[in-house]
Parts: sequence; structure tokens; C-alpha cells
Amino acid sequence: MNLPDVGHVLYAIEVVGVVAFAFSGISAAARQQLDLVGVTAVAGLAAFGGGTLRDLLLDRRPLFWVEHVELVWLILALAVAAVLFMRARHIAPTQRAMQWPDAIGMGFFSAGGTQIALGMEMPALVAVIMGLFTATFGGVLRDIVCNQIPSVFSDHRLYAICAFAGGWVLVACHAAALPTALALIIAALFATVMRMLAIAFNWQLPRWRME
Amino acid sequence: MNLPDVGHVLYAIEVVGVVAFAFSGISAAARQQLDLVGVTAVAGLAAFGGGTLRDLLLDRRPLFWVEHVELVWLILALAVAAVLFMRARHIAPTQRAMQWPDAIGMGFFSAGGTQIALGMEMPALVAVIMGLFTATFGGVLRDIVCNQIPSVFSDHRLYAICAFAGGWVLVACHAAALPTALALIIAALFATVMRMLAIAFNWQLPRWRME
Amino acid sequence: MNLPDVGHVLYAIEVVGVVAFAFSGISAAARQQLDLVGVTAVAGLAAFGGGTLRDLLLDRRPLFWVEHVELVWLILALAVAAVLFMRARHIAPTQRAMQWPDAIGMGFFSAGGTQIALGMEMPALVAVIMGLFTATFGGVLRDIVCNQIPSVFSDHRLYAICAFAGGWVLVACHAAALPTALALIIAALFATVMRMLAIAFNWQLPRWRME
Repeated sequence: MNLPDVGHVLYAIEVVGVVAFAFSGISAAARQQLDLVGVTAVAGLAAFGGGTLRDLLLDRRPLFWVEHVELVWLILALAVAAVLFMRARHIAPTQRAMQWPDAIGMGFFSAGGTQIALGMEMPALVAVIMGLFTATFGGVLRDIVCNQIPSVFSDHRLYAICAFAGGWVLVACHAAALPTALALIIAALFATVMRMLAIAFNWQLPRWRME
Repeated sequence: MNLPDVGHVLYAIEVVGVVAFAFSGISAAARQQLDLVGVTAVAGLAAFGGGTLRDLLLDRRPLFWVEHVELVWLILALAVAAVLFMRARHIAPTQRAMQWPDAIGMGFFSAGGTQIALGMEMPALVAVIMGLFTATFGGVLRDIVCNQIPSVFSDHRLYAICAFAGGWVLVACHAAALPTALALIIAALFATVMRMLAIAFNWQLPRWRME
Repeated sequence: MNLPDVGHVLYAIEVVGVVAFAFSGISAAARQQLDLVGVTAVAGLAAFGGGTLRDLLLDRRPLFWVEHVELVWLILALAVAAVLFMRARHIAPTQRAMQWPDAIGMGFFSAGGTQIALGMEMPALVAVIMGLFTATFGGVLRDIVCNQIPSVFSDHRLYAICAFAGGWVLVACHAAALPTALALIIAALFATVMRMLAIAFNWQLPRWRME
């Protein structure tokens, strides 16, 4: 079997994460009835926030969206197209419409962010935390701008846990000497599917209780 | 005609932006009846927040307020003087009192931030986004600390659009081979005046509507 | 008298600050009835937020928690242990339970952050501001996640002033040619005790008034 090049897989994973988070941002902003600037801003913060924090913490330059400036144009175009489309069709996104792209973006950024940190010789725990930040910070910015409690802190249905687990799955795949491209795909799908199952079956962490 | 040195113009533009945002921060903090520490903190965050984010993203060191530490002393002195003055005169700033310095700071930081990024060989879109961050992030921090929805996200009167347009005007002036010092002044005034007109004539972006 | 090695004292001061802020974060999160993920996240943000901002602004790599990854494991273990313990004993932390570790973390991070910046040849004002950020930003993140107005902006009982004063005490000790290890301990204790006295005796800054 011929596995694709690691760099290409990593780029593809980032593109999937960026586009998925952009959709989640567009949905969230539309539900808040933000204007075109607001929709674009929220889409951009959701799509690029996590990777930017990761690049700042790891001191990677150029930032990934400076290196791949075509992604910025893509998200700008997506936001404008989405606003025009939803207006023309009188479609309003539901809460659900945000959850699925959010789960995909979270899972793919978790794997991608962890891999990038591992590639810079970070210890496993640090790499997994970088993946966690990549996976969650865009959503935190999105939720703050839309005036909601960020779901990474409030969602009892295993949001951050999924991103954390996805990173460790990647570490485990490397320990098992799997090819990197395969490990990336396994980890991204693991975190995404775990999150989707948590939403579908309403898996919860126990709340703090002090009765 | 003898144009002044680019470095001097750029420094002057940053000083205008810093002082203008400091005034907007002092006004906002005074309206919230913050104490001296709060006024100083909000003035400092408004004045230095945008440029610090730009310098972090572009990896410029020393940060501009570390290189020009005299600006930090200036803002400290301004905040203390403003508190003493407003107390002595029993003057309370109005909402209006914040809007004009905010427009000036936004316009000048938009031009200055874009120029700095262009000077580091960034692509035009990236440079304009860096100018946008420089122009808006200080105000975002100011509004968050003062517990308001940041006007960059909520103000339907073309706040972010003005900063974005100012950056593109600078790019256009360079494309037209105007001298940099002149281009900077044109772009800064363009963004500032556009914002002032938007306030004065209540220009709005259409809100999202889902009737 | 044999003074201990400066590096050791600086590391000890950071460990005290990290652990103290972690406890303040655990208390704050427990009062908000966050789940295990929430408690761990708040503990981590409180413990590492300030030092991370300092390292970003000063461009120090590796980040202190990447260099000392044992501290991350320690805080993870502390958070889990605290949740299990408080559940087993049905103990709910009071507001008070947060204030004392917060005061200790603030004081020690103020001295440590200022020293690190001075060691990088920063001007005194910049170094003191870096110490102030180190001392306060973790608490800001903690309070934002717990949905409270950050006490650094709202607490009229001299929160930021203590961190600021601690930094200047360190600068003064250096000017008086005291050994660095001694200066660090004096400054850390000064800021901590000043904050504790401000809480105990309810020292306040005058509020803004516009009668």
C-alpha cells in the first residue's frame, strides 16, 4: 500500500479543520444575526484562532495562515457566499448546524496540532496540550464573540476530553510505529467520532456536586 | 516638496494612535467609574493592545512599547492627570467623548500596522489583516474590561470595514508608487474620516434578517 | 551567610506561584460547580497563564511549562486529587479559600516575572510590567472562565497595585545591590503580605466619583 506524503496529509487535515470551523463560525454568527462583518470575523476567528495560538506558543513563523494565505481568501469567500445564500433562501442555521462541523474541526485540529508539536521534538504531554489548544481555541473565540459560554468549558458532553484523547491516540500510534499519515487519520477520526457519539448519546462527565 | 523620513512618519503615526486610544480608554473607564488602577489599565490596554498583538503575530522584538518605553510613561502620566483633572472639575465623559479619539486611533493604527507588515514582505491581504488587528484589538480589550460588547463586532456603523479599507488604501497608494510617507498619511486619514462620516451619518451595514 | 543559587530560588518561586494559583483555580472552579475537565482547565490556566503571556511577550522559548513539564503533570495530579478529595469529604471551598493562594501566587509571580525580564536587560518599567502581567494574567483567565469580572480590574482592594509595588521593590533591592536571591524573596513576600493586609483591613482605592 502506498501511503501519501506526510506533508500533504497534514495540510489536508488543516484544510478540513479550517473549513469545518469556518462553517461552525458562520452558523454561530448567523444565529446571532450578526452582519456580514460579524459573520466574516467569527468565521475567521473560529478557523484560524486555534492554529494561531499554537504557532505563537511554538514560535512557528510564518503563521500557518500567512504561509497558506489562500486559506484566508477561501474563508472570506465562504463567509460572503454563505451570507448571500442564506439570505436568498431565508435559511437560518440551527444549533445542530454548528455541532457537526465543530466536531470535525476539533478532531482534525487535535491530530494536526499534536503532530506539529511532536515534529518540533516536544514532550508527548506538551504536544497533546498544543493539539488541545489548536482544537479548542478557535471555538472559544467564536463563542466569546457570539456571547456564549465557551463550550470547551461548559459542555458536559466531553468536548475537551475528545481533543485530549485524540492527541494521545496519535502519540500511541507513533509508539506503535504506524506510518505518520495513517496515524494522523486515525487520531483525527477518533476524536471526531468520539465527539459525535458524545453528542448523539449525550455522554456526560459527572457534574460537581456538594449535596 | 520635501517629504519627511518614513521612520519618523511611522513613529508619529504610532504616537497619534497610542495617545488617541489612551484617551478613548480613559473615557470608557471613567464612564464605568473605575478607580485609578482601572483607568490606567484600560488606557494602557487600549493604547498598546493592538500593536502588541501585531508584534506577537509578526514576531517583532522588541515590542514597540519596549523599544519606545517613553510611550508607557506618557500613558501612565496621561491617565493620572486625566483622573485628577476630571475629579477636580467634576467632568464626566460622555459616550461621544470616546468615539472621536477611538476613530483617530483606529485609522492611524490601521495605516501604521499595515505598513509595518508590508515592510516585512507580507502578502497584501496578510498586511491588511495585521493593520486591522492593530487598529481594533486595543479597543476590543478596552471594551471587554469595561464589560461591553466590543464595538468591532457589534457596531453596525462600519467599524472594522473602515480599518480594512484603510489598509487597502495604503496598498493601493504603494501600487501607485506614491512616496511611503504620503501613502501613510492618506491611508490614516481615509480610515479615520470614513469612520467619522459613518458615525455622523449613521451609515450601517444591513443586519442579518430571517423574516 | 550562604545564599542559595539564584536559578534555584527563581525556580522555587515559580513553583510556589504555580501551585498557589492552581489552588486558587481549583477553588474558583469548585465554587462554580465545574466538572473535572473544568477544574483542571481553570487550574491550568490560572497556574500557567501569566508565565505563558510573559514568555510570549519576552520571546522566551521553550515556554517555562514546556521546559519544566513536570509542573504540568503536578497540576494535573493536583486537580484530580482535589476533585476526588472534595467529593469524598463533601467539602465546598469558600470565597476565602481562593483569596490566600491567589495572594501568594500573585506575589511570587510578580517577583519572579520582574526578575526574568530584568535578566533579559529590559528597562525597569518594562520589567515591572512583565512582572505585573505574570502576576495577574493567570487570575484574569481563571476569572473569565468562571464568569466573574476579573478581580485585577474590579477589586478595589489594591490587587494590581500590590503586584506593581512588588516589582518596584525588586528593582529597588537590585539598586541597593542586595544579592538577587535575597531581593527575590523580599519582593515576593512584600507583594504577598501587602495583598493580605489589603484583604484583612479592606484597604481600598478611592472609587471614581462624579457627584
